[in-house]
Amino acid sequence: MSLPVLDGDAVRRVATPRLVLDATRDALIAHAHGRTTVPPPLHLEFPEADGDCHVKAGRVDAGPDFTVKIATGFYRNPAAGLPANHGLVCVISARTGRVRAVLDDGGLLTAWRTAAAGALLTHAMARPDATTLGIFGTGEQARLQAEWLARLRPIGTVLVHGRTPDRARALCAELTALGLRARPATDREAAAADMVVTTTPATTPVLRADHVRPGTHVTGIGTDMPHKNELPPALLARAALIATDDHQQCLDHGDFGHAVRAGAVTADADTPAGLLLETPLHRPAEAVTVADLTGVGAVDAALASAVLGHLAEREPEAG
Amino acid sequence: MSLPVLDGDAVRRVATPRLVLDATRDALIAHAHGRTTVPPPLHLEFPEADGDCHVKAGRVDAGPDFTVKIATGFYRNPAAGLPANHGLVCVISARTGRVRAVLDDGGLLTAWRTAAAGALLTHAMARPDATTLGIFGTGEQARLQAEWLARLRPIGTVLVHGRTPDRARALCAELTALGLRARPATDREAAAADMVVTTTPATTPVLRADHVRPGTHVTGIGTDMPHKNELPPALLARAALIATDDHQQCLDHGDFGHAVRAGAVTADADTPAGLLLETPLHRPAEAVTVADLTGVGAVDAALASAVLGHLAEREPEAG
Repeated sequence: MSLPVLDGDAVRRVATPRLVLDATRDALIAHAHGRTTVPPPLHLEFPEADGDCHVKAGRVDAGPDFTVKIATGFYRNPAAGLPANHGLVCVISARTGRVRAVLDDGGLLTAWRTAAAGALLTHAMARPDATTLGIFGTGEQARLQAEWLARLRPIGTVLVHGRTPDRARALCAELTALGLRARPATDREAAAADMVVTTTPATTPVLRADHVRPGTHVTGIGTDMPHKNELPPALLARAALIATDDHQQCLDHGDFGHAVRAGAVTADADTPAGLLLETPLHRPAEAVTVADLTGVGAVDAALASAVLGHLAEREPEAG
Repeated sequence: MSLPVLDGDAVRRVATPRLVLDATRDALIAHAHGRTTVPPPLHLEFPEADGDCHVKAGRVDAGPDFTVKIATGFYRNPAAGLPANHGLVCVISARTGRVRAVLDDGGLLTAWRTAAAGALLTHAMARPDATTLGIFGTGEQARLQAEWLARLRPIGTVLVHGRTPDRARALCAELTALGLRARPATDREAAAADMVVTTTPATTPVLRADHVRPGTHVTGIGTDMPHKNELPPALLARAALIATDDHQQCLDHGDFGHAVRAGAVTADADTPAGLLLETPLHRPAEAVTVADLTGVGAVDAALASAVLGHLAEREPEAG
């Protein structure tokens, strides 16, 4: 049998928001309970081309499949008219070791599970009556975080803060086209929203802790390397609750780690994000809460399994 | 552009013995000079299914591509009528990070580069007038090692030693069909050949050091895990020259490592195999020589590049 390769269109046909949200939530819960396996990743560096490659594997224990995800970043590509990032996901049976499929989806499922995880945690941790959403950043995740959160709760206004005014305006136009109310905002305005999501590659904090109002929830999804940092340690020091999607990763290369190294919080100050998706959160109305999300490899496996399972149901010849 | 997937037939059409031998030799030489990159592999275990997965990456520095090879072994599969081993090789541009192709060849190129490396080293290290070949084992590599060595030098008789007489006879029939002279042999007879190649999954030595005659060359290719062991430490102690394809790997999980741990040789007693492929070896007629080969990830990259390069020349639309 020839190896099935699923491109972005094939994934788009079956990966409904419901499927992505369910798989992401279930996998985050399994991860919080230690029912996942995520071995140390494999790295290659290509200094002569300003490139790198990361290979990450993950599985939900007792799940039908595991995934091996290859992601490359070659940062001189854009100057040559090529995307900086490439990669693919191999989905392999955890029962037989057979490669079930290769997902050549241009990172679509990774982007969606990142959006789903951010939306799930923001929704679970924000006040029930929170309505305004502050977004830092103007890239793909800035759009997706607003779009996916709107699937879980009504949003009053989206306040978009970006360093480049044109890009902030363009994102507002995109969000408006999706049926949301959105306008460009200063950093102070965006930080003063009821819910705040940071989606930037910043290396110094993008908002000031004293601009965040009591009762606000803040989710950071951009910090994925030790030198990156979006949320100030003072904000985490103020937080009544800090959720991390993976304790060790967030300590190593998340905003939580920056706060720990700054002495603002202790290394045991976090709660596994998945636990907050299991039972409704009782939060004091004036509390500030923070979610630090660095991406969990087991979520990729759960999502790929769900997509293949759905595909096998709908298109038996393709499974 | 959709992702090219090359199956075994596609690989067979372009991977001529010349191409495989040249790519393997050049990569082993580059590896001997430190001009390759092989990061630590990534492992996953599936104890509930008696399975494992190894992900290995490799590149020849300044080469056009690198490879990420996924290999699984699920040892209950045969009872269910499935192969125990599955996997694939992703070939990725070292200039742009783009995935150039997926090789879904059922391990064909891995088997061929293993055969080519064994044949190249056996040919380079054996006496010029060596003719008889002793083969331990009756599996795929037993056949391939004889077949590929015969491409490099004439072989008088192949003496096949296997634990199962039927399988030894079947292999002799296969070798005869390939135009070689072959017959089943005792372990003592096979060990007394001019050239000896061991290709078994043995966990205790398959031959006795005192059965090996002066002037013999012995290549071991079966030992690829710390608990496996084909060649007795006493044989390596007797050897005038020990070649290893990768010093650290052979120390860690090759026959060389067993000899070092047994105190038979020192940890610096080996010579990089690639060096012996560069310049003709001057060996005393009575010397015993040994090659311990554990497989070098960079050879996979070199071979995959060569195959894709050849394919692009012959079938421009497929590259």
